[in-house]
Amino acid sequence: MNSSSLFTIIGVPSFRPLGSLRASSQKESKLTARLYHADNICKIKFTVGTGFKLVPISEFKEMPTIERRQTPTVMIGNVALGSAHPVRIQSMTNTPTADVKATARQTIELIEAGSEMVRWTINDDSAAKAVPEIIKVLSDKGYGSTPITGDFHFNGHTLLEKHPQCAGALAKYRINPGNVGKGDRHNENFARIIKIAIENGKAVRVGVNWGSLDQELVTDLMNKNAALKNPKGFNDVMYDAMTQSALTNAQYAQELGLGKERIVLSVKMSVLQDMVAVYLHLAQKCDYVLHLGLTEAGGDTRGIASSSAALAILLQQGIGDTIRVSLTPQPDVPRLREVEVCRHILQSLGLRYFQPTITSCPGCGRTSSDYFQYLAKDISEYIKQKMPLWKKEFQGIEKLKIAVMGCVVNGPGESRHADIGISLPGASEEPIAPVYTDGKQTATLKGEGIKEEFIRILEDYIARKYS
Amino acid sequence: MNSSSLFTIIGVPSFRPLGSLRASSQKESKLTARLYHADNICKIKFTVGTGFKLVPISEFKEMPTIERRQTPTVMIGNVALGSAHPVRIQSMTNTPTADVKATARQTIELIEAGSEMVRWTINDDSAAKAVPEIIKVLSDKGYGSTPITGDFHFNGHTLLEKHPQCAGALAKYRINPGNVGKGDRHNENFARIIKIAIENGKAVRVGVNWGSLDQELVTDLMNKNAALKNPKGFNDVMYDAMTQSALTNAQYAQELGLGKERIVLSVKMSVLQDMVAVYLHLAQKCDYVLHLGLTEAGGDTRGIASSSAALAILLQQGIGDTIRVSLTPQPDVPRLREVEVCRHILQSLGLRYFQPTITSCPGCGRTSSDYFQYLAKDISEYIKQKMPLWKKEFQGIEKLKIAVMGCVVNGPGESRHADIGISLPGASEEPIAPVYTDGKQTATLKGEGIKEEFIRILEDYIARKYS
Repeated sequence: MNSSSLFTIIGVPSFRPLGSLRASSQKESKLTARLYHADNICKIKFTVGTGFKLVPISEFKEMPTIERRQTPTVMIGNVALGSAHPVRIQSMTNTPTADVKATARQTIELIEAGSEMVRWTINDDSAAKAVPEIIKVLSDKGYGSTPITGDFHFNGHTLLEKHPQCAGALAKYRINPGNVGKGDRHNENFARIIKIAIENGKAVRVGVNWGSLDQELVTDLMNKNAALKNPKGFNDVMYDAMTQSALTNAQYAQELGLGKERIVLSVKMSVLQDMVAVYLHLAQKCDYVLHLGLTEAGGDTRGIASSSAALAILLQQGIGDTIRVSLTPQPDVPRLREVEVCRHILQSLGLRYFQPTITSCPGCGRTSSDYFQYLAKDISEYIKQKMPLWKKEFQGIEKLKIAVMGCVVNGPGESRHADIGISLPGASEEPIAPVYTDGKQTATLKGEGIKEEFIRILEDYIARKYS
Repeated sequence: MNSSSLFTIIGVPSFRPLGSLRASSQKESKLTARLYHADNICKIKFTVGTGFKLVPISEFKEMPTIERRQTPTVMIGNVALGSAHPVRIQSMTNTPTADVKATARQTIELIEAGSEMVRWTINDDSAAKAVPEIIKVLSDKGYGSTPITGDFHFNGHTLLEKHPQCAGALAKYRINPGNVGKGDRHNENFARIIKIAIENGKAVRVGVNWGSLDQELVTDLMNKNAALKNPKGFNDVMYDAMTQSALTNAQYAQELGLGKERIVLSVKMSVLQDMVAVYLHLAQKCDYVLHLGLTEAGGDTRGIASSSAALAILLQQGIGDTIRVSLTPQPDVPRLREVEVCRHILQSLGLRYFQPTITSCPGCGRTSSDYFQYLAKDISEYIKQKMPLWKKEFQGIEKLKIAVMGCVVNGPGESRHADIGISLPGASEEPIAPVYTDGKQTATLKGEGIKEEFIRILEDYIARKYS
């Protein structure tokens, strides 16, 4: 770090530096800097080392930040949800819950992949009985801290009353207000579940889904709308019904004594524009914690693309405190893919970081060999394999940016912008691969063994930067 | 269709019905309806059958529409780009362009998958010479109407001058203003390409990429910023540089005589929030046609998720006239996947429709058998295989909505909301699968052969509805 380097300061939350600083060294102990926060410019004196850090300007890749919609905090077991906390990832098993072994195994897979909450369907007595048993297995294997949600439909009130151990072991109950009974039964059954939640100190999700939307409510709103002088369009009435179903049930739960800090809402629909519209509608009307999902998104590429599109539009507007991606399982694709997709969505939006980002190009007629795509893939797999170890050893490693590029067009540029990057030679280029660290070319690789050599440089860089 | 059905009217562009209509039959010939367009309520008399259609309310699945940012129209060959036209899909080959056979083959694959424009790198004389040859092969095979873009870096001016047949055969030239030469050379080389575009009546994309951003411009803006009393943040200067690079070169092209209706701009970056910010910035400053892309998005799940997230955020705001998804190729994944992802993004946003949507659930502990996921997959493959034929025979087939659901929780609801749907039995449900068409249960399937039976019902439904 030489004395003429440009530095910026990190560690000043919500403040952005006004331009850059020249400092004589990274260890300079006292500095005066002009910073701005919203529209106010402040002059601040601070001491490096007391929570602040000087970082060379070439490393400074600040992204515009997303301002979250304000909500209270809801604790699901020991996982905090809400605007003061990271957007949480959750998922759901598709094993029969009564199958203790299979459900424990899949739950562990989902947790290992990064699911911070896992949901199980509790559809009958055998499933309810299995719940404490599976949780014991998880606990014995060291996975006891991940909260489990029970997914109830039709008979939740009965099952939770009959199986107090199940009610006690779960961290959250998901109630679908379209599936708790019709007419007077609705409120009665709903109240029975809320009572148990209160007694056990549990959180509840009022999870509305348009595939099971309360039909009495829809009919009522449609009739009222038809009688209006200026009736609304069909879809607007549908959004009203979704929103009202969530809000009136949540308010009823509060009247019954369940605190707002125990309530999560969702209003899932399967058509992206409907889903986005209804969440915007709901978000404007309340400050409850929101669980986002595009329901029944389909499988594979379509499910990934449509879920990413839907969630990104809302998350970018600060809406959403926990997400689930619902992919129709594909033969041979592990269930944990839905968790991976959640991570990619959050990381691409800059909301959270889970593992180093590899910037790699799509290749074109210039990238004459496939070497670069295999290298990108190999590096990616190497990182995946190393991350459990690195995470323990190197704080902040998940924000590392690596570039693996296929030719001279954008290769040197992207590699310079990354923390560490390699630009492979394209067609008719000299067969050398420059390596860049912190924006400067620090090595030139050639011949066989480029991969091994680059991995060695990467390991050295990580050890140096994050130790 | 009985006389008490609720109907709505479709075929009145930009108007939405005020509530629903009761009509005595779908054939009723004259109707007066109140509709609204923006904030104005209009009373309109019209005749069903003259471009209008009465549709039962259960089928009415209008989505909120996206209002596009206004642009002129740019013709790329016979493909129109701009706000008056659908958002177009494009892609790029990764075969050496000089390899006529391989490039023709991959181009056809991309076109068949739905790419409406295809880009080839033109990196040297052999590539430039191959261009008219490949276009002849495409033309001979019936693919001559898809416009081809030449991607030029460093030596575009020389290649286009030396190879007039190449210049004449391409529909568009992509110029990267960071790669046309430094200093005085920049404007000189750029002008030489623009001159050829004008002579040949071709369109030009000024394609800025942050991996190859004009470093002289960046340095200049950074210096000017540092001298300001209230300098901007680092990223804001970077966005200014990206935007200025696009705009000053576009304006220079106009000064040289290239019309605005021949110019497309792009400002690709690899970090989602940067890319979104810079496009928002650019979109506010001009009305040029915009090509969107998250550059170097990476491969597989990450590339699909981050590209979908980035493009959806902008497209939802009406920004973007043509899109490309840049996926790092994965071994064994065909290049055309990038086209499929584009289609899924546009269709999930409701911007365009390419093939029937299959709504299918993610399964859970209730979906005890895998039957439903195989059924969803089989139906999906069946549709893919049938679509080339159906598209010719059945107008509007691409908007068909099919639901394949795994249990009673959301199965009947989603199936009713779809045009045609099947709800398979979940765990401990009676082993029957109700089938719904147009919101009503019309069949109940059971036993083996559910798939074959459902496909038969589907075929009947399509033939009836779209003939």
